[in-house]
Amino acid sequence: MSIPPRAPGGFPVVGIIGGGQLARMCAGPAAELGVTLAVLAEAPDVSAALVTPFAPVGDHTDVATVREFASHCDVITFDHEHVPAEVIDALLADGVAVHPGPAALLHAQDKLVMRAALTEAGVPCPRWAAASSEQDVIAFADELGWPVVVKTPRGGYDGKGVLLAERIDDVREWLAAAAERGEQLLLEQRVPFVRELSVLLARSPSGQAAAWPVVETVQTDGVCTEVIAPAPGLDAQAASAATVIGLDIAAALEVTGVMAVELFELEDGSVVVNELAMRPHNSGHWSMDGAVTGQFEQHLRAVLDLPLGSPRAREPWTVMGNVLGGEPTDLYPTYRHLMARDPELKVHMYGKSVRPGRKIGHVNVSGSDLDDLRERARHAADYIQGVITE
Amino acid sequence: MSIPPRAPGGFPVVGIIGGGQLARMCAGPAAELGVTLAVLAEAPDVSAALVTPFAPVGDHTDVATVREFASHCDVITFDHEHVPAEVIDALLADGVAVHPGPAALLHAQDKLVMRAALTEAGVPCPRWAAASSEQDVIAFADELGWPVVVKTPRGGYDGKGVLLAERIDDVREWLAAAAERGEQLLLEQRVPFVRELSVLLARSPSGQAAAWPVVETVQTDGVCTEVIAPAPGLDAQAASAATVIGLDIAAALEVTGVMAVELFELEDGSVVVNELAMRPHNSGHWSMDGAVTGQFEQHLRAVLDLPLGSPRAREPWTVMGNVLGGEPTDLYPTYRHLMARDPELKVHMYGKSVRPGRKIGHVNVSGSDLDDLRERARHAADYIQGVITE
Repeated sequence: MSIPPRAPGGFPVVGIIGGGQLARMCAGPAAELGVTLAVLAEAPDVSAALVTPFAPVGDHTDVATVREFASHCDVITFDHEHVPAEVIDALLADGVAVHPGPAALLHAQDKLVMRAALTEAGVPCPRWAAASSEQDVIAFADELGWPVVVKTPRGGYDGKGVLLAERIDDVREWLAAAAERGEQLLLEQRVPFVRELSVLLARSPSGQAAAWPVVETVQTDGVCTEVIAPAPGLDAQAASAATVIGLDIAAALEVTGVMAVELFELEDGSVVVNELAMRPHNSGHWSMDGAVTGQFEQHLRAVLDLPLGSPRAREPWTVMGNVLGGEPTDLYPTYRHLMARDPELKVHMYGKSVRPGRKIGHVNVSGSDLDDLRERARHAADYIQGVITE
Repeated sequence: MSIPPRAPGGFPVVGIIGGGQLARMCAGPAAELGVTLAVLAEAPDVSAALVTPFAPVGDHTDVATVREFASHCDVITFDHEHVPAEVIDALLADGVAVHPGPAALLHAQDKLVMRAALTEAGVPCPRWAAASSEQDVIAFADELGWPVVVKTPRGGYDGKGVLLAERIDDVREWLAAAAERGEQLLLEQRVPFVRELSVLLARSPSGQAAAWPVVETVQTDGVCTEVIAPAPGLDAQAASAATVIGLDIAAALEVTGVMAVELFELEDGSVVVNELAMRPHNSGHWSMDGAVTGQFEQHLRAVLDLPLGSPRAREPWTVMGNVLGGEPTDLYPTYRHLMARDPELKVHMYGKSVRPGRKIGHVNVSGSDLDDLRERARHAADYIQGVITE
């Protein structure tokens, strides 16, 4: 492994483990801040490696590899939540600054741990239980009714690792698989929510925190497809209550860096926590163009323990549309067309090859006419995906 | 020279000759657009090379070096205006797309050629003449009075290559040096301007053009220190007239890419052209944070002949303050302090070592209270430079 180029003036090197689009989107802000980015990449051509001069390829589960990578960096952070605890512990034993730390990270890695910690902290959650047996599931369903939401505590994302069980037969296979892994399953009450919200915030090691406006997220088949910032019609009191939940969680779990708290909004206007992410998050991509400080700049500032930037929205509304892979693979002519159609569109591509359903980019558009913005973001995303052709 | 990594999906490689801060500030937008950036760098540690994976070191005046670099790129553009015409001609002979082209570039390289072309195109200029002898200078001064502005046609920037001559004795040395170089000097009437304005625009090979709001620029000792977007108190008609001048020049000189037209505003509200820059320009740095499309993204779109983005300002005012090198060389603690003082401040550092007077970064701040914004931008720039200490 060579040595990353260091800018003069005492500016630090931020090492990111994992070379996906979240690491990639730190590259622009890092260049602006004068901070050097280093990426431990899965392969030479992953998303972030294409835009980062120092991106050695290495296995993030191998202690020696990660330790060597970290020896070139002033702080270590993550593109994903899959770095094993023993790797992080080895870094901490070396005296490396790691943000978020392993205690915080565990709550994103293990949903049972997360539920227990949130309940302990008094944060509103759906009713939940751990299940090792059919009896556990039946007891839960007897109390709260079918269907029951069943989750694997580890490794799920974008709707994977989640099962909506209508009857006990649906759960048997998952129970057996969990038992084989030596795990329990997480059971959750199916909450009759009216929509999904997300609180995005950053917290620094010094304990400073800053939250962006609460957004509405729209999922299609378990994958986030649209984010509206701020959440339409959310009154100030409800927005404030949701933000306080986010800040409480960040403080209770000692989160450092950017964190997302995904919420279900219930009919009475109250909220319960759905999921946590201990990193920049899809629900914060709007901030790259719509806020004074975007989430990737803020993440860098937070993990470096720099003062946080203003999360103020620059325009009344920003709508983000996720671009998913579809039939077309030759994307460049497609986005040329979109740029011609809508000069206000901010197109973000991740340098990833197209696979159906894969997140390969997103678009942001800001202004004052929300219906118009939603139509335009949706059109752009659908057009790149090939769902529509004009 | 190795080969730049190419993103899948048909996205092109933009090659920039020169690795200064203008090339560096293209890196973030390129990553967002999914476009690969390649930089022909002066040294491994120049500003842009620190943030670009493919940044071979090579001499921009050497035809073979530049041809090899260009063979890896889909279009060639520039960080500066110093690439010799014969190098560009060699690229064109190879069929390489070069933007701006040599004809346009010549007008930024040679101020006598620029004055002649603008006068030919009917664009308002200060009175001017070419001078080879003392008689030429005296004749010019007899008509327009002393002092006379004397410029070397080539190589000047940031106040270098400009002399305010009070009498013929002041010009003798420059006349002799010009004669030795086989050049004439450019004489210009000293215009009684009330302030300086800049029109920044982009024009694509297809002929599409987009202009940002006209800005006011403030120079200190010949160096731009502050930019106010839009220019305060400039009425719509005057702004429109200035913009039309910019668009006319871009069309007349067949400029491609971003271009700046620096203007003097006279007491009667009319304007004359001071200088041209055939590239992203200091007077456009505000757009990185203050406009829907920043100048570096727009430059990439223009040279790729992609549809241009909206130049709309996102906020009522944006003020840019240039950060010049001063006594302090350990800048990181300094900017940490500034971030704490002003969470809305956008700090841009160029990864350059400090030399007194060297442009090492800039700050942007946007909002609705112009006086407040100016104070904050000024404070930040002065604080980093070490002119003030609190």
